[in-house]
Amino acid sequence: MGKHFDTFREKVGVVFDLNAASAVLDWDQQTYMPHGGAQGRAMQTSTLRRLAHEHFVSPEFEQALGAAADEVAKLDPDSDEVRIVRHVRREFDKATRVPSDWVGEFSRVTALAQQSWEAAKAQSQFSLFEPDLTRVVQMRREFADFFAPYDHVYDPLIDDFEPGMKTTEVQAVFAQLRPAQVALVREITERGRPVDDSVLRLQYDERKQWAFGEQVVRSFGYDFNRGRQDKSAHPFTTSFGQNDVRITTRLVPDYLPTAMCGTMHEAGHAMYEQGLSPTLDRTPTANGASLGMHESQSRMWENLVGRGRPFWQAFYPDLQQLFPEQLGKVDLETFYRAINKVEPSLIRTEADEATYNLHVMLRFELEVALMQGSLPVHDLPAAWNQKYQDYLGITPPDDARGVLQDIHWSFGGLGYFPTYTLGNLIASQLWEKIRQDLPDLDRSIAAKDFQPLLGWLRTHIHQHGAKFEPMELLERITGQRLTAEPYLAYLRTKFGEIYAL
Amino acid sequence: MGKHFDTFREKVGVVFDLNAASAVLDWDQQTYMPHGGAQGRAMQTSTLRRLAHEHFVSPEFEQALGAAADEVAKLDPDSDEVRIVRHVRREFDKATRVPSDWVGEFSRVTALAQQSWEAAKAQSQFSLFEPDLTRVVQMRREFADFFAPYDHVYDPLIDDFEPGMKTTEVQAVFAQLRPAQVALVREITERGRPVDDSVLRLQYDERKQWAFGEQVVRSFGYDFNRGRQDKSAHPFTTSFGQNDVRITTRLVPDYLPTAMCGTMHEAGHAMYEQGLSPTLDRTPTANGASLGMHESQSRMWENLVGRGRPFWQAFYPDLQQLFPEQLGKVDLETFYRAINKVEPSLIRTEADEATYNLHVMLRFELEVALMQGSLPVHDLPAAWNQKYQDYLGITPPDDARGVLQDIHWSFGGLGYFPTYTLGNLIASQLWEKIRQDLPDLDRSIAAKDFQPLLGWLRTHIHQHGAKFEPMELLERITGQRLTAEPYLAYLRTKFGEIYAL
Repeated sequence: MGKHFDTFREKVGVVFDLNAASAVLDWDQQTYMPHGGAQGRAMQTSTLRRLAHEHFVSPEFEQALGAAADEVAKLDPDSDEVRIVRHVRREFDKATRVPSDWVGEFSRVTALAQQSWEAAKAQSQFSLFEPDLTRVVQMRREFADFFAPYDHVYDPLIDDFEPGMKTTEVQAVFAQLRPAQVALVREITERGRPVDDSVLRLQYDERKQWAFGEQVVRSFGYDFNRGRQDKSAHPFTTSFGQNDVRITTRLVPDYLPTAMCGTMHEAGHAMYEQGLSPTLDRTPTANGASLGMHESQSRMWENLVGRGRPFWQAFYPDLQQLFPEQLGKVDLETFYRAINKVEPSLIRTEADEATYNLHVMLRFELEVALMQGSLPVHDLPAAWNQKYQDYLGITPPDDARGVLQDIHWSFGGLGYFPTYTLGNLIASQLWEKIRQDLPDLDRSIAAKDFQPLLGWLRTHIHQHGAKFEPMELLERITGQRLTAEPYLAYLRTKFGEIYAL
Repeated sequence: MGKHFDTFREKVGVVFDLNAASAVLDWDQQTYMPHGGAQGRAMQTSTLRRLAHEHFVSPEFEQALGAAADEVAKLDPDSDEVRIVRHVRREFDKATRVPSDWVGEFSRVTALAQQSWEAAKAQSQFSLFEPDLTRVVQMRREFADFFAPYDHVYDPLIDDFEPGMKTTEVQAVFAQLRPAQVALVREITERGRPVDDSVLRLQYDERKQWAFGEQVVRSFGYDFNRGRQDKSAHPFTTSFGQNDVRITTRLVPDYLPTAMCGTMHEAGHAMYEQGLSPTLDRTPTANGASLGMHESQSRMWENLVGRGRPFWQAFYPDLQQLFPEQLGKVDLETFYRAINKVEPSLIRTEADEATYNLHVMLRFELEVALMQGSLPVHDLPAAWNQKYQDYLGITPPDDARGVLQDIHWSFGGLGYFPTYTLGNLIASQLWEKIRQDLPDLDRSIAAKDFQPLLGWLRTHIHQHGAKFEPMELLERITGQRLTAEPYLAYLRTKFGEIYAL
């Protein structure tokens, strides 16, 4: 490429390196760092993040960006060069709209909010968190105002996680999804053929659990030469560049799905990052298109593949061989039904495939109401409990298992939750297209051959990174805007059969 | 402190954070990083190092340093503030004497030299390395000239690792040491009572080796809440601040001392860093006084403690219990003699306590000759082999096990080797003083009580970090300049007894 684009890329690369180094430090903190290292680590990470921000919003950077934009103006609009410049321009404009003073203050406020949230959760007392959350919501409204005029006060928030997505579009899709999903869950609960999942709650040797998870994701195509798995309290995926993308998992000795499904989920994220085009390396475009698109990949491997019948036809004999005592006399059908049991429960992160979105949608609705000012923070716990009753038919016995269960609001992450459900919807919408393109999909999965699926994902999604906004990418692939229909059809078919509705 | 000192410390802290982050990335690279991550990691580390350097030598930094120096001028000359400013000033002056262009070129030349050294070692052919080494030596002379006038062309090199040390002082001490040590080794070889160390070469379960090493260094006082041990191909210690100081080890199933003594050695380094005064945190003064002083700590715990009789009186029963099959019938005396066997050998890193310095001193002599120009690089292998014959009575069968065995010259580290022997000498000189101050030392070691020793080291050495130059510190503690006498006396007594001389 031209001289200006090269200069620009070098500057982008420095910011990328600083962020990658931060990510290594975070990974270390969550896996191996000794307890004593916490304070020093906080200083190191904060210095790296601050320098990355300073380099990014500097006048030199802006000038290099402008020169590169002029230089690539006549290239193919879908070329890496044009898309990288456009992507960086978008992030630059957002970053420079928000004053540094506000960023510093927000960081201070959310640091305090995380502390009070922890205390409030430990004592199951929302009032301890209420003042800080009030301040967080207020600052999030200030944040939105930096992007005025907007159609909806929630738009600038969701845009941080789901570029280009509008609140009204999410609301429209969720309005289609929610009543149907509530009805399905009610039907399952009230007249479904009961499912017994006690077999999943026996003692399972942790080393064997580990080995099985690694065997599965290796066969998926997660490349251990460019990644690794470690343990951490909260499983996550992190990338330091497409050739070093790591996952973590959590082992629970008496509940088999935690590590097994968690490893598949994280590997889904990780294979996305490993599949990026090398031409995007050391740019922010070497990233998923959005959190929702990322979640579509993790959910696809975890649920559409990993809780499907063809998958267990292939792997259940291996699992039985590994755990003959626990599973030797349990037939495939019993195990398949157990691993797909539906049961309304209090905690989002432990929810099954059919109820998960209900946890998410109610949070989204509460966030929107908070941002609009129609719900005062003080009334949040009552509103939370009412929605759990309406959508899931249960009421949290206390705030710890209710409104205080998630960390997101304490770090200011309003706008984040809906991406979980968007991920589920996108996954199903893609899955319909994949089934058309790969009519033998079930057969290849049942033969442990994941190359066709991974190859399809690489071609249509992974390689592009963040070159396209998520809805643009989805429409290019499926010819349609986001819709809840494929997902609802999938749920009805799968659970209709399992629960004999 | 005053405003200017605080500003200065904040700037120093940013450089510290960047270097600490680099260190985390290096640690990860040598312990857990997947193979594919190498190229991205090189970019990240290089970016962090470059930014650290830019921040350090910037005009803003120089100004903050000057203002802080003025502000602390009237304080106690031994105060942290004065010493930190003086230490940073010294490093700043050195860093700014060397032009950036030279640094870039040196980095390029040594990157190539490391490649050609690897190839040359693999093929045992010095000529493959000769052109690059010639260039390295030439650039090291240019480096020295940035510090002209100097007393000796080697002075600026050794000063990088051993601040304030002069070549003539090293030569004088080595001149005292070398003939005596050559004579002792010859005496042992020619008429010592033979020692059989075959018991160390049985099969030892790696997990038990690991457990024993950790038990030992935990009892030494290495704090696992502020550190951890992992595996790596080449053992090392690294610090990201005094509350996160990590060690690594290498396990060899059929040679017990590698991991056991290696862990003690690295823990010796690590306890130095863990014992720094918290008031030095986030400054370069939060570091050992020099490589030699650092090595004095690792060698003290590895050899003066860990190969001593009181130590094995305490720990041999534990080791026997762990390995009853291998050691159940081997008595303490046999084991003690085995672990202290002296045998001239080709490889420095595998050398025993009595021969180790001979490997080091001959490298130092060769380096000085290379720098002075009295030894052309072309003649290095012959000179090397001649010295091995003169000092150790053996001749390398090839260059791989001779002149090509160490990595140091390929990365330009001339001036580094002598610090290994300085460490041995300093350790013994300190040990004499410790024995005076702690008359019950042997008894406490035999009772697994290392608090008196560690407490002494903390008070007299560790807490000071790099506030004092190493020889200044040594003289403050022992009342003497560096001398080889204590070390020679120690060797004569210990090995005279073991070998019945």
